[in-house]
Amino acid sequence: MDKNLTMLTDFYELTMANGYLKNGLADTIAYFDMFFRKIPDKGGYAVMAGVEQLVDYLKSLHFSKEDIDYLRSKNCFCEEFLEYLANFKFACDVWAVPEGEIIFPGEPIVTVRGPVIQAQFVETMVLLTINHQSLIATKASRMVRAAAGRAVMEFGSRRAQGGDGAVLGARAAYIAGAAGTACTICDREFGVPALGTMAHSWVQMFPTEFDAFKAYAVTYPNACTVLVDTYNVLRSGIPNAIRVAKEVLEPMGCRMKGVRIDSGDITYLSRKARQMLDEAGMEDCKIVVSNSLDEFLVRDLLAQGACIDSFGIGERLITSRSEPVFGGVYKLVAIEDKDGEIIPKIKISENVEKITNPHFKQIWRLTDKADGKYRADVLTLRDEVIDDTQPYLLFDPEHTWKRHLTTNFTARPLQVPLFEKGVCVHKSRDIEEIRAFCASCLDKVWEEVARFENPHPYYVDLSQKLWDIKRRLLEENSR
Amino acid sequence: MDKNLTMLTDFYELTMANGYLKNGLADTIAYFDMFFRKIPDKGGYAVMAGVEQLVDYLKSLHFSKEDIDYLRSKNCFCEEFLEYLANFKFACDVWAVPEGEIIFPGEPIVTVRGPVIQAQFVETMVLLTINHQSLIATKASRMVRAAAGRAVMEFGSRRAQGGDGAVLGARAAYIAGAAGTACTICDREFGVPALGTMAHSWVQMFPTEFDAFKAYAVTYPNACTVLVDTYNVLRSGIPNAIRVAKEVLEPMGCRMKGVRIDSGDITYLSRKARQMLDEAGMEDCKIVVSNSLDEFLVRDLLAQGACIDSFGIGERLITSRSEPVFGGVYKLVAIEDKDGEIIPKIKISENVEKITNPHFKQIWRLTDKADGKYRADVLTLRDEVIDDTQPYLLFDPEHTWKRHLTTNFTARPLQVPLFEKGVCVHKSRDIEEIRAFCASCLDKVWEEVARFENPHPYYVDLSQKLWDIKRRLLEENSR
Repeated sequence: MDKNLTMLTDFYELTMANGYLKNGLADTIAYFDMFFRKIPDKGGYAVMAGVEQLVDYLKSLHFSKEDIDYLRSKNCFCEEFLEYLANFKFACDVWAVPEGEIIFPGEPIVTVRGPVIQAQFVETMVLLTINHQSLIATKASRMVRAAAGRAVMEFGSRRAQGGDGAVLGARAAYIAGAAGTACTICDREFGVPALGTMAHSWVQMFPTEFDAFKAYAVTYPNACTVLVDTYNVLRSGIPNAIRVAKEVLEPMGCRMKGVRIDSGDITYLSRKARQMLDEAGMEDCKIVVSNSLDEFLVRDLLAQGACIDSFGIGERLITSRSEPVFGGVYKLVAIEDKDGEIIPKIKISENVEKITNPHFKQIWRLTDKADGKYRADVLTLRDEVIDDTQPYLLFDPEHTWKRHLTTNFTARPLQVPLFEKGVCVHKSRDIEEIRAFCASCLDKVWEEVARFENPHPYYVDLSQKLWDIKRRLLEENSR
Repeated sequence: MDKNLTMLTDFYELTMANGYLKNGLADTIAYFDMFFRKIPDKGGYAVMAGVEQLVDYLKSLHFSKEDIDYLRSKNCFCEEFLEYLANFKFACDVWAVPEGEIIFPGEPIVTVRGPVIQAQFVETMVLLTINHQSLIATKASRMVRAAAGRAVMEFGSRRAQGGDGAVLGARAAYIAGAAGTACTICDREFGVPALGTMAHSWVQMFPTEFDAFKAYAVTYPNACTVLVDTYNVLRSGIPNAIRVAKEVLEPMGCRMKGVRIDSGDITYLSRKARQMLDEAGMEDCKIVVSNSLDEFLVRDLLAQGACIDSFGIGERLITSRSEPVFGGVYKLVAIEDKDGEIIPKIKISENVEKITNPHFKQIWRLTDKADGKYRADVLTLRDEVIDDTQPYLLFDPEHTWKRHLTTNFTARPLQVPLFEKGVCVHKSRDIEEIRAFCASCLDKVWEEVARFENPHPYYVDLSQKLWDIKRRLLEENSR
């Protein structure tokens, strides 16, 4: 995925950048936060993803001669600006929550500080990259939880929204706990294990289903999972699978690895199939199911007593079908004056939930020392430190009379630096490391917050200092 | 977009291909159809899109040494197969409905004929490419129709599912009638006009809203559209826009091009804004609105009497949020025996609507000679010809007693060749040509079929010959 995505930007980022330059604001330092307001599917938590790709994008930012020529042809950019782009050198500081961490609404999951031209320019790809992968990782996490220890395999490339949707979506799903993907290039590029069984067409290419299974078994004696619903699962598919196991595989010293059911009443068929396989001495033969599954159907199938070892999930995972948008936004939160003093900025809105948290901030995560669970997050000014040797007064930023003096916790800042003055300081992590980190973070989320429906809201509070500044700005702006 | 997507394929395409080779089926000729079963959003028609990208993909199919080495490392492919891939030469025939044409469920919108290894292999990208762009084109077409002649601008890159989702989605939206896109690279790559206004951050970067508008007007006197909802639309935004028009633009001989409203009660605000602008002699100043719009909100706003000249539509277009999946499938419909005789194949299913139409087919579109509208489509065997100088007996393939002897029509085949024995015979079309073609096709769809809700189903019938073969196969398979 090494194509240059510099020009994958909203056109207004460029017209505004040109305008900043022409209006003497080129060197003004601005701070932008990316945050989201709501968790997809009314869930209780989201999973941060896409950081590695954001870093790749920012590292490779450059405008080719072709880009410059194209922009010149639009007749709206001055030559000084085009010159600036031709010599573009990324100079921003960038911080983000690490990939795989659990995130909540209102938190600055990415912060960019730098010359406003640049900090504004990167908006589109910061949002696109983090929105997309966080969406799929969050959805995958729900599905993996629903599967209660059984494998969830990502099978959705053919219904993905474009090639990157398939490949990076599969990557995000793996981070959040999927067992692998059908997408081959995602294995080659990122090391996400590529998995697969067979299509109905394989079965149809042979004179009989038995012939088709036999041919597959002979070809892949150690990795033979057969698709049993081309004709009739219980009358044909399972009996043929058993016959091939006995007549072909076992004489070779091999076992039938699995059967896949892709249609029909999965609960009924999987229970009957399990019984038939067990009676044939094939207790180790796994049952894989697929067919428009999501976290709710997975939960229902298991509640109904379906006998399933792993789930293949396609379109409802790779597009997050029930809620295909992660609504992250990118907002100006501060600028610096000529002396380097930070001037916080707020965006007012008639919709109270759309009002932004101003200033250059940090997210502090407070973890319970007793049970190791995440207790609450606090947004602070960047230079504040939460001293976890002392009790800390949490209060609800809306209903400020809700207060709680919390003790026995550890506090750590969530944002870590990715770039310092344009230089990458991020140490790239292996996908297995990110995946393990994600699992360990999710372990620390209370069950009440993690549940699918009506989750208990997790607290994201403001420090007293930040709250005071926000209130002052609100009052000044509503004169 | 020149990256090699050969390996963007489901892993099972490769394991099956290797299996076909090892089982002596490498040279067997297979026919696969892509078709879809349901129209997103319960709509009455869909728009074919993505053909140019499918052609690009098929033209550039090749396995690099890196690909081969990766595949060898999986320890499941034989050397003979890896050799085959290293010397891969695409040899299939491919036909498709032209991009921009109106399509309906059950129709083979793409057909691939060739050695089963190859025809099977391309499944993932045939589906991904056509599913994605047809989804967005179909959604965009609904939105453009809702806007009733007003411009619809695609503004969704930041919420797209990956970079290709943004860029190719914007392309598909334009084909279906969007006026342009915010996505700069889509302009540079495909010539889709890039559009944009300004972000709230522009307004916040200046001491006052007036200063921000003035700076923009001076920078872009001939293309000045200002965002008026950063503080208060009617008390601040519109008055400042008028003041800048009078004090800055008009003395330069220029006019304020537009104002954009991105929040609040759009109907109320746009009507009041229109009145204020008109009273200031700015009848030519356009009102652009945005904020989580879709076809239903667009229709409602206009029904409520909102004064709107154009719509900026983001996430609900670029992800087709209400229905983010175009469920196209790719099914084996025939093979050839050693004498080149076609042996039709059918996929049985307990779900009757999942049963496939067998054989190598053509789609014939019957157009009414009197009003020029599409009357019905008929799927035929590929070598059948519908003679439009004679009456033709249409009958419902499910309820065969529903019959209609149709006259006074013209008939034309919809599928056209893209590749002949692996050689591209498709003449690439300019995007403006595809867009104009799409508009002309949509004009021929009956209003009853095109409506948003409860559309009248369009007839897709089978020829008598095809129906007879399908019935015979069904009966043979349900012995």
